[in-house]
Amino acid sequence: MTTVNAYIATGADEPLTATTIDRRELGPKDVRIDIAYAGICHSDIHTARDEWGGTTYPVVPGHEIAGTVAEVGSEVTLHKVGDRVGVGCFVDSCGKCGPCKNGDEQYCVKGVVQTYNSETYEGEFTHGGYSQQIVVTEKFVLRIPDGIALDVAAPLLCAGITLYAPLTHWKAGPGKKVAIIGMGGLGHVGVKIAHALGAEVTVLSQSLSKEDDGKRFGADRYFATKDDATFDELQNEFDLIVNTVSVNLDLDRFLSLLAVDGTLVELGVPANPLEARAFSLLTNRRSLAGSMVGGIQLTQEMLDFCAEHEIGAEIETIDAAQINEAYDRVVDSDVRYRFVIDTATLG
Amino acid sequence: MTTVNAYIATGADEPLTATTIDRRELGPKDVRIDIAYAGICHSDIHTARDEWGGTTYPVVPGHEIAGTVAEVGSEVTLHKVGDRVGVGCFVDSCGKCGPCKNGDEQYCVKGVVQTYNSETYEGEFTHGGYSQQIVVTEKFVLRIPDGIALDVAAPLLCAGITLYAPLTHWKAGPGKKVAIIGMGGLGHVGVKIAHALGAEVTVLSQSLSKEDDGKRFGADRYFATKDDATFDELQNEFDLIVNTVSVNLDLDRFLSLLAVDGTLVELGVPANPLEARAFSLLTNRRSLAGSMVGGIQLTQEMLDFCAEHEIGAEIETIDAAQINEAYDRVVDSDVRYRFVIDTATLG
Repeated sequence: MTTVNAYIATGADEPLTATTIDRRELGPKDVRIDIAYAGICHSDIHTARDEWGGTTYPVVPGHEIAGTVAEVGSEVTLHKVGDRVGVGCFVDSCGKCGPCKNGDEQYCVKGVVQTYNSETYEGEFTHGGYSQQIVVTEKFVLRIPDGIALDVAAPLLCAGITLYAPLTHWKAGPGKKVAIIGMGGLGHVGVKIAHALGAEVTVLSQSLSKEDDGKRFGADRYFATKDDATFDELQNEFDLIVNTVSVNLDLDRFLSLLAVDGTLVELGVPANPLEARAFSLLTNRRSLAGSMVGGIQLTQEMLDFCAEHEIGAEIETIDAAQINEAYDRVVDSDVRYRFVIDTATLG
Repeated sequence: MTTVNAYIATGADEPLTATTIDRRELGPKDVRIDIAYAGICHSDIHTARDEWGGTTYPVVPGHEIAGTVAEVGSEVTLHKVGDRVGVGCFVDSCGKCGPCKNGDEQYCVKGVVQTYNSETYEGEFTHGGYSQQIVVTEKFVLRIPDGIALDVAAPLLCAGITLYAPLTHWKAGPGKKVAIIGMGGLGHVGVKIAHALGAEVTVLSQSLSKEDDGKRFGADRYFATKDDATFDELQNEFDLIVNTVSVNLDLDRFLSLLAVDGTLVELGVPANPLEARAFSLLTNRRSLAGSMVGGIQLTQEMLDFCAEHEIGAEIETIDAAQINEAYDRVVDSDVRYRFVIDTATLG
């Protein structure tokens, strides 16, 4: 076992605090990673504060991990010491079920092992990226291409793949009109990726306060959803709408913006069930869909794509001591656009 | 103008009664059809009883129409006197918008002209198939192949295309597992078509009371949804679920039966909004979609397909005097499986 510094959540109403945790001994297929940066995802906050239920304390959050390989097990072939690597939302899956064989490990029938607040098939409780090191079986370690700095790559491991997966699955590209709801940690990466894929990109944000940024990231058009005229102007307009906002929206209004065969994809889990009139779906043969991160092979493809197109997250780098303050700012949407923890400050 | 016998709804709480209505003079592109049979669709009842709101009285329902061509206008090229023909849910569309050009007339941006309770672009109020004749512009008249009798063909004009469109759009076929919710007027045709398309077909019905019929129509499996074990046994099972039931179901339970990338298609409009937890969609990248009948070209394809596969609706033929009683029996699900009015009895 190796003892490393970390920041840990001890209860729903407690601030995260500095601690040490033990990482397992290196198995033959394991890769030990020196973590350089860990992004702060809203899921970390939901888990740390037990807002979804099911949090086991104490737990170290963090599933947007970037660093370098420190050590590899005897049978590791995919990575070597010194490689720039990343870890995303999960660290193991059964490998045998239909979804695993199809590269959709996140939908593993046995249940994917999440990077934190989860249990491995061997019974070990998982701790995430707010720590100096992590040990992960080689298949679930991603290569970070030289074209992306580690700090701006870290958020791609969750936010990046969460957007890249639905955008590619529903074929965002030349000739397609894509709207992104929300210009936060997920949304701003979505704008960059959808633009790089060649789609015409529209941002649907509450206000126009981030319009300049949105256009700089690649948005062709930018509309305020607090303005009712937006919904009149954009009726039947989009082939794909990706909703990055985790609060309950008036879905009928957004569905009305979809063209024939258009799809609105939900990425978040709002507090209440989704609600839509059947007529909103019957009209134009529309779909309301969901998407949850993406498989390992697709995540690698996303990282390669982002490197090729020079896409990284827009970040604000913080010290570990600022994590609790950063959590509050994420909840207040007061970050442009993702906090990344410099893990050198964990000690 | 030509005066013909018909059965008409005069108010939400009034029984339908015998009357006469006028059909327009034949325009150069018009086809006059001697109606032989008209199916009774649940939509007829919703409209006659103003259950959706928006009914203009008096109105003649009926959009499952089969008959023969009595007369054609001077410029008609698609049909000739004596041809066996049908008319479905709509009788005109703008022909110029994107959906019309793509053969999705039902999603016409200007608004499709429905077969009854609608207004033509010329300002004429439309009356449907519970009548001896109807005059329809040639493009919206379908050819009924010799392989299908007119009485069992009539319900295909709505029920048939309502099922054929989503089954083919979402690629029901060999290697695909398809479930049909409900074994009524729509569902029983869906079983026949899905089976003929080569899919493995499962019926999800409240009880097993129609199991023998379902299997005779081509179902491979038949489950009762009142039995909780059904939902345990069929988790993550289906590529496509088509919901023919127009009441609000517990959608989360049915969504949990979808495999990765599976779609649940709603065909009806229940009284309350659809409700589903986001997690039910995020898991397995599922979709909740809607579909509304189908375009003219696809409807013709459906009729040709049904003739080739000897598919007709299962019907109970009634006289016009039985229409009101039949309405009550449809509401009570007491029909196997579609009422068809013999229009010779309208006079």
